[in-house]
Amino acid sequence: MRFTKTLIPTMKEVPSDAVTPSHILMLRSGMIRKLASGIYEWLPLGKKALNKVEKVIRELHDEEGCLEVLLPALLPKSLWELSGRWAEYGAELVRLKDRQGREFCLAPTHEEAITELAGNYIKSYKDLPKIFYQIQTKYRDEIRPRFGVMRAREFIMKDAYSFDADGKGAELSYDRMFALYKKICAALSLKAVPVLAKTGLIGGTKSHEFMAPSDEGEEELVYCRCGWGANQELAHSKISAAKAESAPWREDPRPLEEVSTPGVRTVEEVSAFLKMPEEKFIKTLIYRTAEGFACVLVRGDHSADPAKLRAIIGEDARLADEKEIEEITGGPLGFSGPAGLKIKAYADNTIKYCSNMVSGANKKDAHIKNINYPRDFEAEFMNIRTVKAGDPCPECGKALDVARGIEIGHTFYLGTKYSEKLKASFTDKAGKDLPIEMGCYGIGVSRIVAALISQNHDDKGIIWPRAMAPYQIEIIAASSNGPAMEKAEEIYEALSKKYEVLFDDRDVSAGIKFKDADLIGIPVRIVLGPRGMKTGECEIQSRADGKTEAVKLDKILEKISDFT
Amino acid sequence: MRFTKTLIPTMKEVPSDAVTPSHILMLRSGMIRKLASGIYEWLPLGKKALNKVEKVIRELHDEEGCLEVLLPALLPKSLWELSGRWAEYGAELVRLKDRQGREFCLAPTHEEAITELAGNYIKSYKDLPKIFYQIQTKYRDEIRPRFGVMRAREFIMKDAYSFDADGKGAELSYDRMFALYKKICAALSLKAVPVLAKTGLIGGTKSHEFMAPSDEGEEELVYCRCGWGANQELAHSKISAAKAESAPWREDPRPLEEVSTPGVRTVEEVSAFLKMPEEKFIKTLIYRTAEGFACVLVRGDHSADPAKLRAIIGEDARLADEKEIEEITGGPLGFSGPAGLKIKAYADNTIKYCSNMVSGANKKDAHIKNINYPRDFEAEFMNIRTVKAGDPCPECGKALDVARGIEIGHTFYLGTKYSEKLKASFTDKAGKDLPIEMGCYGIGVSRIVAALISQNHDDKGIIWPRAMAPYQIEIIAASSNGPAMEKAEEIYEALSKKYEVLFDDRDVSAGIKFKDADLIGIPVRIVLGPRGMKTGECEIQSRADGKTEAVKLDKILEKISDFT
Repeated sequence: MRFTKTLIPTMKEVPSDAVTPSHILMLRSGMIRKLASGIYEWLPLGKKALNKVEKVIRELHDEEGCLEVLLPALLPKSLWELSGRWAEYGAELVRLKDRQGREFCLAPTHEEAITELAGNYIKSYKDLPKIFYQIQTKYRDEIRPRFGVMRAREFIMKDAYSFDADGKGAELSYDRMFALYKKICAALSLKAVPVLAKTGLIGGTKSHEFMAPSDEGEEELVYCRCGWGANQELAHSKISAAKAESAPWREDPRPLEEVSTPGVRTVEEVSAFLKMPEEKFIKTLIYRTAEGFACVLVRGDHSADPAKLRAIIGEDARLADEKEIEEITGGPLGFSGPAGLKIKAYADNTIKYCSNMVSGANKKDAHIKNINYPRDFEAEFMNIRTVKAGDPCPECGKALDVARGIEIGHTFYLGTKYSEKLKASFTDKAGKDLPIEMGCYGIGVSRIVAALISQNHDDKGIIWPRAMAPYQIEIIAASSNGPAMEKAEEIYEALSKKYEVLFDDRDVSAGIKFKDADLIGIPVRIVLGPRGMKTGECEIQSRADGKTEAVKLDKILEKISDFT
Repeated sequence: MRFTKTLIPTMKEVPSDAVTPSHILMLRSGMIRKLASGIYEWLPLGKKALNKVEKVIRELHDEEGCLEVLLPALLPKSLWELSGRWAEYGAELVRLKDRQGREFCLAPTHEEAITELAGNYIKSYKDLPKIFYQIQTKYRDEIRPRFGVMRAREFIMKDAYSFDADGKGAELSYDRMFALYKKICAALSLKAVPVLAKTGLIGGTKSHEFMAPSDEGEEELVYCRCGWGANQELAHSKISAAKAESAPWREDPRPLEEVSTPGVRTVEEVSAFLKMPEEKFIKTLIYRTAEGFACVLVRGDHSADPAKLRAIIGEDARLADEKEIEEITGGPLGFSGPAGLKIKAYADNTIKYCSNMVSGANKKDAHIKNINYPRDFEAEFMNIRTVKAGDPCPECGKALDVARGIEIGHTFYLGTKYSEKLKASFTDKAGKDLPIEMGCYGIGVSRIVAALISQNHDDKGIIWPRAMAPYQIEIIAASSNGPAMEKAEEIYEALSKKYEVLFDDRDVSAGIKFKDADLIGIPVRIVLGPRGMKTGECEIQSRADGKTEAVKLDKILEKISDFT
């Protein structure tokens, strides 16, 4: 494709409302354009990348025996009422009325539609298992659309749904899709980690998110090279049980001892003041929850994870203020501790295995040493702390990695949640009518384009992985006419027969061509300059590592295969 | 693909709300399923066919240098207000509000969006020409959705838009797209005829419809082997000028002569009574229009075309009743004629070249002979008559064909209608700012699947053209176990490496398998029966012509290439 014949409107400036690298680079390289908040147009270069992602996903689903269907985006309210989600979904569900006044939604997901469809055709255990999938535009009226196509209101998803006769079969389908997703990520050149995840509005009993590690990710993930992983809100590490039980500080309980700590409040301060390590402390946080006051206990060197906390004490809980703390504990802020406290206590699992800990004495300028569970306080133990990089993996004990990540896929074991509500049942071998066991599986197709860029760029622009690049080769003539340009034309014609080639035939300076080439990020670049014309040579450059090789003009066709 | 592993829910019964063959066959062969009025689900077999249509269209557009984009289906009201179509479009436009109360539509077409996009990037004549296209789901809230995916409310369209610097360039783009559409129809194995058409709500000055001749078509088309064609509402034939002027009945005007025609009223009756041919008569139809009464004159052997009439006398016009006719003409129904009539007259062009015609005398039981224009009446001449098969082509004079047809594509020369309203301008060579010249071009992607079936079926089912069949080969074992089934498995494995094969491995009777195979219409069928197992033979059958050939089992791989 000639640059002048396509439309690649590159931009020098960083667009004002873009903050993440992928969003900035997609706009600057002319892949997408914003039409309205969360609503984007895909320009030719972006659409080419999108098509490549779709193709990989479709081919691998077909290869796995998944059945492609296409369900409508317009779904009747009646269908969504059967599942109860018409009411549950809230303002994120785009709703509308047709000319007769009948209500519809623009589907953000298709559990209802596919379950109703399957229930209509699947009659017997002989019809099972089945996995359906589709690649389709979805709608979600995000309260705060952001990061370009990463969190848009109209976006493309691949969604799949498995139907099985029993839990065992459903587990097998889940495992098949799980393996397929790993294969797809590899084929897409996308680094992704499957992590345990919550099920949210989709429901079900088991769920993994496929997270693409990236600094611009909105979620934090914890993962191990052994394959274990979880979102931070579900993650835990081995420390709570193993490390603590065998640790040198697992001592015999000593009697409680009040120590004077005038004016020292934070764990850091008290630790320095008492010359004791932070892991010997219990941090005591007092919250005002919907049910009254509660305290949360984590080890001094740990943090309470906000997402985990929210799940325990509720979305609306807030830290108690100074006055409330005095009323509840009898002591001022900074001197709270579990010993003698009469409110509900939630403690991180780690606390259970500690001994002779230090915490506030619930009075001014005093702490208590040698606090031990269960001797000195009651608590409900839970997974509260933020897992940190280097903490031991709960599966294999090796050091965990912690990274930000972009959710690019999600698998759910649904069980019979939808099949019961939508009466999708089958007759088993014994003639009994049973609800079908389901799973559902999503991949964010348009989001993957952004995720790939977020994982593959430098400060100059995109660095497309070879398999996913919109073009494989870009040809640049350093001058816009003369022998170099003529030779470039010739090479373009020859290479186009075998490769997807972008030929920068614009009448602009070599500098602009090079800058745009870095920005667009085509993996291999052939550069023809006036000097090379004299020696009969061109340069083949690799965008990823900047490697450059001088190649005789008559050897390009041979040489280029080493690069692509 | 094994029949038991996919989902092809064939039906014996004709679904109650389906009337057209393509709708009936798509439902009966399990290609689609209705979810709501005008809203369909594409099941695996249907989706495979749909994908093939999309692939052909995408590949040929790419080959032509058209640039694929993807615009949102959700378009802001503000964009549609710029063109004025937010108000014009009426109830067919699906409208909705987002959570902030901002108004959007679900786009039925994308002139506004693409013009705004092009206007943003195209600055100079050097950026032109450009043709953008997309394959995308569109929405139209049809008042009466019907014929399955043929006239649905959610459907898939390929829409393209050309941008040029001047009218000459725009004509070239139009011609390129016109040629591309012919090429696409050929590649799709779709018989289609381009005909002159009206521009409707899209606007513009020139338009062709690509019509697939089919009895289930909603429109009537008139076309010639020379390439000329028009929708009936625009069609005319050569007869009006040439034939009439040279015809033997072109005589010198004779004086008017009243003849008594007691009780004979219709052209047929009077023609028989007076022993004169029907082409010597003028039929006079009195209408009540919004502006008062008017008469419409067509030759006795012609019919006034309803669509042409509507365009002339208005949608709300109706035939005058007996009382009104008496008041207006002075004579009863059946005896009206142009001579002496004082109301506005619209006459078909043919009338102008006739001589010594017969029509009603505007009094009871009398007609007048030798009526001549302009001596005896005034009229505005227009194209009113229904063109009939065999009428001479206005281009080449050969006999015209008339058929019903399905609109599968539409091309429009838009001019600057949208570019002016949306301020999409460019700077020409002289430095002048000019609006971009546009064209737009649509193909009904989902409708084409139905059109293909409407053109390719018999009373047993679909007969897929080879290039578009969802599977190329179907394998049937006449028994569901034993040697024939084992051999079928073996052949299935071998052929699947090279072909798309459907293997009917169901545990059902041979009769059901054959009936379903006829219904689904895979072009080539390999049948293995118990008798053949003894002689080491199978049958290869062609769905289209029923031809059957006995082939040695070890020669199948060789022989099958003759069939596919």
